[in-house]
Amino acid sequence: MAATIRDVARASGVHVSTVSRTFSAPHLVNAETRNRVLAVAEDLGYRPNRAARALTTGRTHNIGLIVADISNPFFPPLIKAAQAHARTRDYHVFVADTDEDPQVEEELIQTLAKQVDGVLLCSPRLSNRVIERLHAEVPFVVVNRRVKGMPTILMDVGQGARLAIEHLTGLGHRRIALLSGPSGSWTSGEMRAAAAAMDGVELVILGPNAPTERGGLAVAEEVIASGVTGVLAYNDLVAIGLIEGLYERGVRVPDDISVVGVDDIVAGRLNRPKLTSVAMPTAAAGRMAVDLLLQSFDEGATPTLATLDTHLVVRESTDRAALFPRG
Amino acid sequence: MAATIRDVARASGVHVSTVSRTFSAPHLVNAETRNRVLAVAEDLGYRPNRAARALTTGRTHNIGLIVADISNPFFPPLIKAAQAHARTRDYHVFVADTDEDPQVEEELIQTLAKQVDGVLLCSPRLSNRVIERLHAEVPFVVVNRRVKGMPTILMDVGQGARLAIEHLTGLGHRRIALLSGPSGSWTSGEMRAAAAAMDGVELVILGPNAPTERGGLAVAEEVIASGVTGVLAYNDLVAIGLIEGLYERGVRVPDDISVVGVDDIVAGRLNRPKLTSVAMPTAAAGRMAVDLLLQSFDEGATPTLATLDTHLVVRESTDRAALFPRG
Repeated sequence: MAATIRDVARASGVHVSTVSRTFSAPHLVNAETRNRVLAVAEDLGYRPNRAARALTTGRTHNIGLIVADISNPFFPPLIKAAQAHARTRDYHVFVADTDEDPQVEEELIQTLAKQVDGVLLCSPRLSNRVIERLHAEVPFVVVNRRVKGMPTILMDVGQGARLAIEHLTGLGHRRIALLSGPSGSWTSGEMRAAAAAMDGVELVILGPNAPTERGGLAVAEEVIASGVTGVLAYNDLVAIGLIEGLYERGVRVPDDISVVGVDDIVAGRLNRPKLTSVAMPTAAAGRMAVDLLLQSFDEGATPTLATLDTHLVVRESTDRAALFPRG
Repeated sequence: MAATIRDVARASGVHVSTVSRTFSAPHLVNAETRNRVLAVAEDLGYRPNRAARALTTGRTHNIGLIVADISNPFFPPLIKAAQAHARTRDYHVFVADTDEDPQVEEELIQTLAKQVDGVLLCSPRLSNRVIERLHAEVPFVVVNRRVKGMPTILMDVGQGARLAIEHLTGLGHRRIALLSGPSGSWTSGEMRAAAAAMDGVELVILGPNAPTERGGLAVAEEVIASGVTGVLAYNDLVAIGLIEGLYERGVRVPDDISVVGVDDIVAGRLNRPKLTSVAMPTAAAGRMAVDLLLQSFDEGATPTLATLDTHLVVRESTDRAALFPRG
């Protein structure tokens, strides 16, 4: 049987309201009493009721975390890092999945707004205009989208795309396909912009593609027809699906075509060939998102912008361009 | 600007409390008024405030869904099916990850209890005793654990384990390793019990293992040393890691050792060799969990027990036993 606030009050010799205040407004309780109450609470294993505390502090100590697709392995490391970090700050994280649907995303934000202290919005598919409007209802931290006036964390995928394409051109590839992602994706836009700005590359942009293995399988035929020898895929799932689709059509990776993914997920490391990939700082972004959100509670929404570096991990799916490419 | 309850009241010519009652207790509003209010609300795009409605109906229209590890691809199809199905019933699903830690699981249940109408508890790591105690705080549906007195959905992984072992013995394998999962796992216990009850098998049980690729990599050496020619792994991630670990040690799958996984995740289908696996009815379980929970709200917690069939999908990671096995 867990200890109640009454048990703590009785054992400390104070009124229950003093125990309540000790947890919700400790600065209003004198130090001696406060220390006694906290020591007794610890002895008895008393856990303050979050809901009750929320009534006095206006805080639920819950954070919402919204992702585009929970089954995309890009998100779990971010979710788990945010959760673990939030727990050390006495917050719980609840996750909702928008299924890549902007309407569902908006609905979930409105529901969460009433139940949590703030929302981490990861890879949103909503327009900036709608995000700015919803921001009036609940504090946000936005991950992988640049939105005016709110704390933002960007993973520098443009830099990653440049590293990937330099790696391919360094191996002698000239004609390179960029497989873009979903149309609402900031990441996809950044990759396109970075790739289009590079010299010495014949860039072929194919997409939008579903950000899944299926998306990669579906674009394989087009990749072969485009006559490229190198490919930068929107993410590792697309890269893995593409490699499978090429393999089924007798095109080998990296012998015939080199493929680079993005995200550096575990499945890419276990793929055969092991995937060359742009590693994204997902765990760091998850932790930082929690920090920026909690800071914004204390100090008002400082529109901090943090940009985190990406880097390229070279494995087996990229090699020198064939001298006489197919097609 | 979204329409408010006042807009609807003004346009319908009724008091706001009538609009509120129309949504929260429609049987208390006469039919003519009710129909007019609902028509006006639809015209104006009015969305009743769930939090306000919760105050009158005692329902939040939110469901919590607790999983052991959000990064395990077993869970996302269940989560996504539960979400999509709940949405058609006007419920939102919020997900929390226990990181395979029973203490975190208990804490999350207690937090969710105050914010949702019920909790879907998937592959819990808590003891049945603790689950029964927490059930006093919030309605549960339990997935993949048999707990007295509450609605339960089981995926018949014992049947799946039998199918997998029959498949292996049919290919001439006699000495077979079972790689068990985490110690709190009901699934792992069911697989062990089913395998141990089978005739004509020399069973070697290795574990507990972490339910991840890393767990599979770590047990590869032991699998080789055990002299088995066939392996049934706790799940596909363990199987994929094991195949990689065997490959690094020069042992080929299926030539030297046949490997069967459980869950039939996408990564297994894209693995090389493509994984033979026990397919789990995760999406069906997710939908049914929502149905049983909503039924329990209406009818009290009927302790329904639903057992869903599993089946074996044979692909490339299993073949005839080598006549002269290594070791």
